Amino acid sequence: MTYCVALRLHHGLVFMSDSRTNAGVDNFASTRKMFTFCTPGERTITIMTAGNLATTQAMISLLNERTSAADDRNLGILNQPTMFQVARLVGSTLREVISSSSVEGQQTADAFSASVIVGGQIKGGKPTVFLVYPEGNFIEVSDDTPFFQIGETKYGKPILVRAFEPDMATEDALKLLLVSFDSTIKSNLSVAPPFDISVYENDSFADKEISRVEADDPVFRTISSKWGEALKDALDGLPTYKI
Amino acid sequence: MTYCVALRLHHGLVFMSDSRTNAGVDNFASTRKMFTFCTPGERTITIMTAGNLATTQAMISLLNERTSAADDRNLGILNQPTMFQVARLVGSTLREVISSSSVEGQQTADAFSASVIVGGQIKGGKPTVFLVYPEGNFIEVSDDTPFFQIGETKYGKPILVRAFEPDMATEDALKLLLVSFDSTIKSNLSVAPPFDISVYENDSFADKEISRVEADDPVFRTISSKWGEALKDALDGLPTYKI
Repeated sequence: MTYCVALRLHHGLVFMSDSRTNAGVDNFASTRKMFTFCTPGERTITIMTAGNLATTQAMISLLNERTSAADDRNLGILNQPTMFQVARLVGSTLREVISSSSVEGQQTADAFSASVIVGGQIKGGKPTVFLVYPEGNFIEVSDDTPFFQIGETKYGKPILVRAFEPDMATEDALKLLLVSFDSTIKSNLSVAPPFDISVYENDSFADKEISRVEADDPVFRTISSKWGEALKDALDGLPTYKI
Repeated sequence: MTYCVALRLHHGLVFMSDSRTNAGVDNFASTRKMFTFCTPGERTITIMTAGNLATTQAMISLLNERTSAADDRNLGILNQPTMFQVARLVGSTLREVISSSSVEGQQTADAFSASVIVGGQIKGGKPTVFLVYPEGNFIEVSDDTPFFQIGETKYGKPILVRAFEPDMATEDALKLLLVSFDSTIKSNLSVAPPFDISVYENDSFADKEISRVEADDPVFRTISSKWGEALKDALDGLPTYKI
């Protein structure tokens, strides 16, 4: 499994992904699931992937090849005029990879399935995030749905639902995400650090490196260990239910 | 779906179940998923069910019939000598119902599947809880695994993992469970109030009525509304992660 989250804040976008990949519990490894495409001053795009690793790697490879190829059909991510067209390109590439892996005539693509979050900003447009389904179609963040999750989403959702605020500072958003990720890794072996982080400030169009939170990062370790105590204190403050 | 939790505390057992049942989002109803069997002064047993409603209702009906029938084979729950034998009886009854619903020759029982939590105490034995699988086998709570969940378990698990303490008071355990249930209903439409509660104090062998928390219960509403604020305060107390 995998866990990736993208938040749309008022001042920018925040992406976080774990790095565990596994085929059964006795075959696991660490792999990057976050990828950036950038033309400094003009566009910054971040992609996160969940699902069949062969599918998502092939999709990223195809997107990379088409971006670097000197092709006058302009098929690459760096040539798309809008984020909507970027999402369409990602969706069609994803669908293409899945269908090429599926046995002819077979109707289900489950075994080769994958989901993708793609977000960023292109000059002239607003920063936005899309959740792309294996069928190639996609949905966009909105004020009502200001974040997307893919992969093992359930354990980490309640804290996002409760504590996310679109006007929170980047540091607070990262703290919130680390708690959400920590809740997930405490309950599911298929999600694990290191975590990759990409932060985009609106209208920056910057080529920032992906940051990495290692399992032994002291701040992450403190957040993880103190969160249990903080939750107990929070519970103490609530009224008691008597039967 | 469904959400049921059983906690084993040092001083007793606490059970909570939701009451929503649904077949698709346009066909839902409220139904009880908690059942008690008691011989005052001798045994108190609580059963909670998740899964196919026809299966679980048939299982409970069979258990009830066998309990009330004047049968010298003593097949009922009230005749079993130990909680282990109660769990075996529940398991075999569950497996019997599932296999009788399955089409002959079909290998999967998924469509008719169900899981059961059965807990309580019989004089001469310790209070304990079992999680019974649709195959009829089961596992028992232990110091390492002091609670069981069935149904839609993921959203409500992180708070249990962090805040559960085996020596907590009943009132605190109920508060913890209400937060866990509230986190679940905020994220999944197939889990909903009213919630049923059964509390068993060790060696009481009492026949207590099941309590019910309605959706508009003022304490539950306060817990639900204040939990978001409490979580934000808890987050504020954690160190900030800077990239």
